[in-house]
Amino acid sequence: MLNKFLKKEKPIIKDDKLNIKAMSGVLELKPAEQIEFSKMKKRIVETFEKFGFIPLDVATIERENVLLAKAGGDTEKEIYRIKKGDKDLALRFDLTVPLARYVAANYNDITFPFKRYQIGKVFRGERPQKGRFREFYQCDIDILGDGKLSIKNDAEIPSVIYSIFSKLNIGPFQILINNRKILAGLAAELNLSDKTSEVLRIIDKLKKIGEEKVSELLMVENISKEKTKQILQFVNFEGTNTEKIKFLKNQEISNEVYLEGIEELEIVSDYVKLFGIPDDYYKIDFSITRGLDYYTGTVYETFLVDYPELGSVCSGGRYDNLTEFYSKRKMPGVGISIGLSRLFSQLKDKDFFENKSMSISDVMILPLTDDLEKTIELATIFRRRGIKVEIFLEDQPIKKKFSYADKKGVEFVLVIGEDEIKSGKYTLKNMKSGEQKILPEDEIISFLLSLRSKNI
Amino acid sequence: MLNKFLKKEKPIIKDDKLNIKAMSGVLELKPAEQIEFSKMKKRIVETFEKFGFIPLDVATIERENVLLAKAGGDTEKEIYRIKKGDKDLALRFDLTVPLARYVAANYNDITFPFKRYQIGKVFRGERPQKGRFREFYQCDIDILGDGKLSIKNDAEIPSVIYSIFSKLNIGPFQILINNRKILAGLAAELNLSDKTSEVLRIIDKLKKIGEEKVSELLMVENISKEKTKQILQFVNFEGTNTEKIKFLKNQEISNEVYLEGIEELEIVSDYVKLFGIPDDYYKIDFSITRGLDYYTGTVYETFLVDYPELGSVCSGGRYDNLTEFYSKRKMPGVGISIGLSRLFSQLKDKDFFENKSMSISDVMILPLTDDLEKTIELATIFRRRGIKVEIFLEDQPIKKKFSYADKKGVEFVLVIGEDEIKSGKYTLKNMKSGEQKILPEDEIISFLLSLRSKNI
Repeated sequence: MLNKFLKKEKPIIKDDKLNIKAMSGVLELKPAEQIEFSKMKKRIVETFEKFGFIPLDVATIERENVLLAKAGGDTEKEIYRIKKGDKDLALRFDLTVPLARYVAANYNDITFPFKRYQIGKVFRGERPQKGRFREFYQCDIDILGDGKLSIKNDAEIPSVIYSIFSKLNIGPFQILINNRKILAGLAAELNLSDKTSEVLRIIDKLKKIGEEKVSELLMVENISKEKTKQILQFVNFEGTNTEKIKFLKNQEISNEVYLEGIEELEIVSDYVKLFGIPDDYYKIDFSITRGLDYYTGTVYETFLVDYPELGSVCSGGRYDNLTEFYSKRKMPGVGISIGLSRLFSQLKDKDFFENKSMSISDVMILPLTDDLEKTIELATIFRRRGIKVEIFLEDQPIKKKFSYADKKGVEFVLVIGEDEIKSGKYTLKNMKSGEQKILPEDEIISFLLSLRSKNI
Repeated sequence: MLNKFLKKEKPIIKDDKLNIKAMSGVLELKPAEQIEFSKMKKRIVETFEKFGFIPLDVATIERENVLLAKAGGDTEKEIYRIKKGDKDLALRFDLTVPLARYVAANYNDITFPFKRYQIGKVFRGERPQKGRFREFYQCDIDILGDGKLSIKNDAEIPSVIYSIFSKLNIGPFQILINNRKILAGLAAELNLSDKTSEVLRIIDKLKKIGEEKVSELLMVENISKEKTKQILQFVNFEGTNTEKIKFLKNQEISNEVYLEGIEELEIVSDYVKLFGIPDDYYKIDFSITRGLDYYTGTVYETFLVDYPELGSVCSGGRYDNLTEFYSKRKMPGVGISIGLSRLFSQLKDKDFFENKSMSISDVMILPLTDDLEKTIELATIFRRRGIKVEIFLEDQPIKKKFSYADKKGVEFVLVIGEDEIKSGKYTLKNMKSGEQKILPEDEIISFLLSLRSKNI
């Protein structure tokens, strides 16, 4: 009817074959899943903030030469370039490079050590495949020093990981810790200093491809059978954390980097205990190296005990100089990253999320009268008290109102009809159990407030 | 030292003239500003959720033909296209088009009315200028019906706006409300049905360019002096909201659209009162039309009383069919959008934000002993109680520790030295007032918890 007045042409569907699914490689969630995703994200934020990390929100689009200052290889292939005028722009592929640019550009406005978190989307033009996304969330924290940064910071990071994964409630997990200096020192001792990078990169694959293949790869690098054996024996040493530290000290290796590595790992290990992380949740593992040359000391990986096939769900480590491509100032740091989209998607595939509710409201009000005065009055009072309230506003028969609440998966429904308005007492119904009570306003408020902690 | 072992080449700065500032058109904030921005965002989220809107997080990258199904003109010019393989991809330029695609694609998993919010970045390749961004946040809510949606939803939206801007604490504001059907009906009455779109678009400019220029523009559209006068007289009618509704009813206009418009506006206006919005904060304004043909009924704009020059900070309205380009199902809706980056940036330019703190912690612990056992123990207890705690972990003289806390702008500092550890009482210092107290653990916890609501 109105179109006649407001529009000259009727809208037409331009292309009948328009593909309306999300681009492949994007984790597009259904509403109930999205609620679970948001809960996880919120819990991660709360934990980051509890440890004093402040939010940072760097640009999504960067100059291409900034993004690629360091990169090369796969990164350069995977980058999403933007066509627009004569500028060479591109989408960030991680949160670390933009952070490096940010601290270099804003050095004078930052107090160091700088502890920031960012949860944001990053973009990689990979061929989409299971568990690989082109647009996905990373949750990062980093602590950056100006010139130097105490090793004690490396020890606080596992306690952040511990707090997060305890709170996410996805079962037991284990934080594996190592220090790259130890293997670098071992390599030096074996006269393999010029192959340290390759040795660390290959050892990183041990958990995925096994001992035999790792031996083969080391062979390709012209590392002798004898040395390969020594390296594998070393990284495979089993024992308690204390026994492992003792093992390291008992080696007849005296180069400085090796000793530095032991010292750092021991400090981290001692502090981790102080931070109250149970023994089962934390383990020194000499085979963890993180592969990337970027890391220069402590390294972390985190595995879910019930879902080891997910691989590391939270990794990171210490790096010597974040800003080396953007500033002449040296800024060492330590940080971790959680690949939230990937983690969520994998848990979803394992039917981990049982919630099918499309509501985050504490209560839904179903008004049975045409006059909404009392309904709106109560909703406004509830909301002022911090209660999440949804009002069903459609003109539909009472049965449909209840079935809407049911379909949406809201837990409590407040019914406001003529009788309720007259008596000042309202029917609060638990949609799951079917149980209902008739309560005055203030008792409804205290009851709903007592439930609050359950919802996000 | 370590580089010798881990790296083959020393890093080089690839390009000495590398521009490390953010791309122009991005609101890159300093840490203290970022904290304020996050607070605003958090308050908006809390309010959206209090009204029962659930989070949604649609894709950032879309197929170009999906984004441009409806658009044209400026949108097509401003879109950021992505180069990658043979796919035509582009960055979303608003949150509405991806929402339309999402509900069309996920129809079967959605319970209608569907109330969702999304706070996310959108991208427009505009020439950067003051207050115009190329990458910026929008905060959107929409309520979508399947086939139909009650007008009462239009009445709840202003109460969301009211709650948000009350909570943002940026002074008094005024929500202006109108219904496009009224002017469309007036145009029909004046035999200008074929020019309705133009009339509404021109009237929308009244507040910005004034009466004279609006008259000129109407003239260009071949609208007579007499009719121009009638239109202007109509939209300029002043009075209370009640007087305005009366004025509308007293016109001798009987076309259906006009009458529908009055009816809807009256319902919205009546409910707005019920939602407890004070009279000063809400006004019917016949000159509000939102320019875009997209809107088909109720329209909203919001102005800050102290900063009218910012223009509307929250706008939206009712639309007949969100999904017209993506689905044959009709989905009417009503929604609003806050341009958060723009709003924040303008308030910042007016020195609205006084906070210069780079910390969101409730307390920073300064350990004075080498042994951090007690420090870590207390920090862990505090964090478990929900207190945000930062530990200063660097090995520095005591004076530097205090000066760090001061520079970061943290309000409370807890000093833990030998004496404190022995006595079990710790020094809590207010860094602003200089006042300090020696308190046992539990009193520190209750004190810090009582402050919690002040921080984010």
